[in-house]
Amino acid sequence: MGNINGIAASSGIAIAKAYHLAVPNLSFEKRTIESSEEEINRLIEALETSKKELEQIKENAKKTLGDEHAEIFSAHLLVLSDPEMINPIKDTIETEMVNAEVALDQTANMFIDMFKNMDNAYMRERAADIQDVTKRVMAHLLQVSFPDPALIDEEVIIVAEDLTPSDTAQLNKQFVKGFTTNIGGRTSHSAIMARSLEIPAVVGTKTITDQANKNDLVIVDGIDGKVIISPTEKELQSYQEKQGQFEKQKREWAKLKNEPTKSADGVNVELVANIGTPEDVSGVISNGGEGVGLYRTEFLYMGKSQLPTEEEQFNAYKSVLEQLGEKPVVVRTLDIGGDKELDYLDLPKELNPFLGFRAIRLCLERDDIFRVQLRALLRASVHGNLKIMFPMIATLEEFRQAKAILMEEKDRLISEGHSMSDSIEIGIMVEIPSTAVAAPQFAKEVDFFSIGTNDLIQYTMAADRMNERVSYLYQPYHPAILNLVHHVIEAAHAEGKWAGMCGEMAGDSIAIPILLGLGLDEFSMSATSILPARTQIRDLSKAELVGYKDKLLSMSTADEVEQFIREKTNQ
Amino acid sequence: MGNINGIAASSGIAIAKAYHLAVPNLSFEKRTIESSEEEINRLIEALETSKKELEQIKENAKKTLGDEHAEIFSAHLLVLSDPEMINPIKDTIETEMVNAEVALDQTANMFIDMFKNMDNAYMRERAADIQDVTKRVMAHLLQVSFPDPALIDEEVIIVAEDLTPSDTAQLNKQFVKGFTTNIGGRTSHSAIMARSLEIPAVVGTKTITDQANKNDLVIVDGIDGKVIISPTEKELQSYQEKQGQFEKQKREWAKLKNEPTKSADGVNVELVANIGTPEDVSGVISNGGEGVGLYRTEFLYMGKSQLPTEEEQFNAYKSVLEQLGEKPVVVRTLDIGGDKELDYLDLPKELNPFLGFRAIRLCLERDDIFRVQLRALLRASVHGNLKIMFPMIATLEEFRQAKAILMEEKDRLISEGHSMSDSIEIGIMVEIPSTAVAAPQFAKEVDFFSIGTNDLIQYTMAADRMNERVSYLYQPYHPAILNLVHHVIEAAHAEGKWAGMCGEMAGDSIAIPILLGLGLDEFSMSATSILPARTQIRDLSKAELVGYKDKLLSMSTADEVEQFIREKTNQ
Repeated sequence: MGNINGIAASSGIAIAKAYHLAVPNLSFEKRTIESSEEEINRLIEALETSKKELEQIKENAKKTLGDEHAEIFSAHLLVLSDPEMINPIKDTIETEMVNAEVALDQTANMFIDMFKNMDNAYMRERAADIQDVTKRVMAHLLQVSFPDPALIDEEVIIVAEDLTPSDTAQLNKQFVKGFTTNIGGRTSHSAIMARSLEIPAVVGTKTITDQANKNDLVIVDGIDGKVIISPTEKELQSYQEKQGQFEKQKREWAKLKNEPTKSADGVNVELVANIGTPEDVSGVISNGGEGVGLYRTEFLYMGKSQLPTEEEQFNAYKSVLEQLGEKPVVVRTLDIGGDKELDYLDLPKELNPFLGFRAIRLCLERDDIFRVQLRALLRASVHGNLKIMFPMIATLEEFRQAKAILMEEKDRLISEGHSMSDSIEIGIMVEIPSTAVAAPQFAKEVDFFSIGTNDLIQYTMAADRMNERVSYLYQPYHPAILNLVHHVIEAAHAEGKWAGMCGEMAGDSIAIPILLGLGLDEFSMSATSILPARTQIRDLSKAELVGYKDKLLSMSTADEVEQFIREKTNQ
Repeated sequence: MGNINGIAASSGIAIAKAYHLAVPNLSFEKRTIESSEEEINRLIEALETSKKELEQIKENAKKTLGDEHAEIFSAHLLVLSDPEMINPIKDTIETEMVNAEVALDQTANMFIDMFKNMDNAYMRERAADIQDVTKRVMAHLLQVSFPDPALIDEEVIIVAEDLTPSDTAQLNKQFVKGFTTNIGGRTSHSAIMARSLEIPAVVGTKTITDQANKNDLVIVDGIDGKVIISPTEKELQSYQEKQGQFEKQKREWAKLKNEPTKSADGVNVELVANIGTPEDVSGVISNGGEGVGLYRTEFLYMGKSQLPTEEEQFNAYKSVLEQLGEKPVVVRTLDIGGDKELDYLDLPKELNPFLGFRAIRLCLERDDIFRVQLRALLRASVHGNLKIMFPMIATLEEFRQAKAILMEEKDRLISEGHSMSDSIEIGIMVEIPSTAVAAPQFAKEVDFFSIGTNDLIQYTMAADRMNERVSYLYQPYHPAILNLVHHVIEAAHAEGKWAGMCGEMAGDSIAIPILLGLGLDEFSMSATSILPARTQIRDLSKAELVGYKDKLLSMSTADEVEQFIREKTNQ
């Protein structure tokens, strides 16, 4: 009952029942029991139910998300079958004559504390596994429901405070029709994931978890950023129409799937996609992507108990390259740290993680990790059109050092008899202001630039895009951002190099005309944004937009820029 | 015994005994007592000793640091005399027959919890007072020593993990000859404070607290960033000589106290000082400062239980302006948030405070606080040469909004019959990359720029300057920084405005020739850096340095820049 405004995070209309994804209340009371047998039976039952669920989840994850994502559940299953974990719980029930909840809690906490304090990343990761699994078993003992997005088998809209990357990894597109959260913005991980899965989503509603009850009919309008709870018949009808129109528009867009991206005055640009896993490539192809402009390799490293091997990585990179044939694939080397943590690396807590030890900074110090990735990439290069790009480069020394390591591994692989492509372009993300400003110096040494606007904007404006109190300062159209972007493009062209963009800005309908006018060569975006962007670009005259350039670059505010573009492009 | 390397944070040589500033172990055991009278006497004694100490501390603080800094101790004294606090402790001893430590702890925690949970900033601040005072009383009960920097009455070198702003506020220059810490860098608060107090300091030693024992003779070499523990006779002699030379050089510098700042080829620039309180002005004058380029007003707001009144602020601003006569005083409006918290404002915890809700962002939302400061400034303007500057401006809208509020208060004051200067310049800090890039747009509307390099560098490089893992990226000579600084200066001059700098960079002997060549008009630095800077500038030819400009701006790395300047200026 009601209309809630949020942030449109992924386009489309979804209509289904609300499904709350929340950690249930797992508090319990300590009881002295009469019969230990009865409690042990309750325990065994809870363990068995949990095992069955986890096996199911693992199968689902394999099918929808690939083997990589499924592996974490194997670790969980191992815990449930480990006699060293299960026997002490039974012993506690028998010797202390307490209820199963107490025995489970005590034993699990003992192991968790023990593993947590070990100076070994793998064991600490096991502590996290035990914690996760214990929650599930406890929920069954207490007979409270434990939400499993991977177990959903009817059409739902997920309603949650927020979705973690591992939550989203479990979503099954067949049943999860849309989602809506209290927090987050257009560039939060869950929003990016929603666009990659092509699920309509509205985030940042602040109160949706309070407003929508379980099984309420909910409409997620990912076009205008609205959520309607228990719609009236009239509302329902109107949104079904809107949904139909959206589907129709999608069919229109689809006609351009195999067309080149050409402006009205005949200038070609490249529209490519951002991906996270080899499974995302089919969406790139079905949406008419001309390649991959950003392959985020972090997923290979997440949800695991240890670093991925060279072979695992090689297979992933090979799969992406082979699927795309001659089309370019720009792979970004590992970007962790900041808001992306890996438990098994045991990174230090930082006061300002976004200004901290992450991405290339970490890779240059931990070059043991970096070299494995570079070897896998180099070996995979024979299977397609690979370009390698380093993230978070702030100084030329960092780029030179990263490239030197790459060259060392190349020489080593050659001496080991491996073959590899000899035309791999090596570029950098331009996402730190220093690198945008010093682009003329960088352009002499790199093969290409890819402007990462999500970070570039937050550093240039000194505003954390995840912090709602300052998110008004996340202004892609701020004249300073446009000037930096222009400066980077000019610097690239002056040295005969190309400049792309792989931030959210590249797929934005206000930004696209601006960027075309500034001379951007490559636009990398969510796969689902490609066809709308191609449609838009076919109606734009690049020459006209170039004519607005000086005017735009000297404007005073983002509002002025937006208003001008809206007027000139009828938006 | 040994030589420890650290970061030279404040120049000079200090030789004295080590004094550890550490929170003592205050754990205690619960005991059942026989006589409550004895325990109550112990309690009363501990309370009385604490009171005497606090009165002494308050007096010292008043003398050396001014009334403002002393006020927090009045609040602490009130707690110790409050029967509502003291009687329950006595009651607990009598009714529960427990030792005084237990009774103190229980009662204090009860009050702390109660106040902490109140939705009232003042009461939460009282919880912090009680916590501080309880620690002191507990230390006396346990007969462990509680370090009080303000109570020190013999010459010492302070040795500590780190110094908080309130620790440094208590240092008495008469006895504290130097200090050295495990953590921190050249731009940490304790380092800035050390330069302002003219106390030699070496920070970031990592291990000094482990290496120096209580009463060890310690040499702090704030010129080369070294600490020598238990020096040999030879070392001691050599450092006494070095100390003598430094004092001699200081006397040489002093000869230029009343001279203008003129380059070898006769070009004038302005050398002004950064200050934090009215008490700092005497140091500015004695060091030959030509005014104040940055008056940080945060100290007026810190170490208090509530916001400073308009009258308190008026008196502080008036005092600074009057002391400086016709010399310019640039006052920065409130810059809190980030690493500078105010308990009574109850700001939300942020994931990345440096990219968060601070300075002008907070002032525009809490304009009730902002207006009080602006009124005080406007009223004080008749007493000298006031310029007002807004911190952390990222967009022109923010500047326009801040200026509009200032104008509103001006009109209101006029209608209330107050008089004020009609030639107050209104400028901004350029410390966010967007503002540096969009400087041409800003220059049309502001009266001046002051480049705040401490923040500008950390945002431009996307590296937290307090985070040791990425502090190598804090590169003042990075070509991107030089290009931004140059862009800002050119933008100012194109509109007939002036550009200054108030970050640490302005007083750095490598940066000074670069900045002179880039055309900087005003250099604001620690008062103690002014005479060395004036000495250096008298030997530099501005025309020659302007000739290097293009070369410097197109260099690839900070190292290249530094090497070039060292060569050209014989450093």
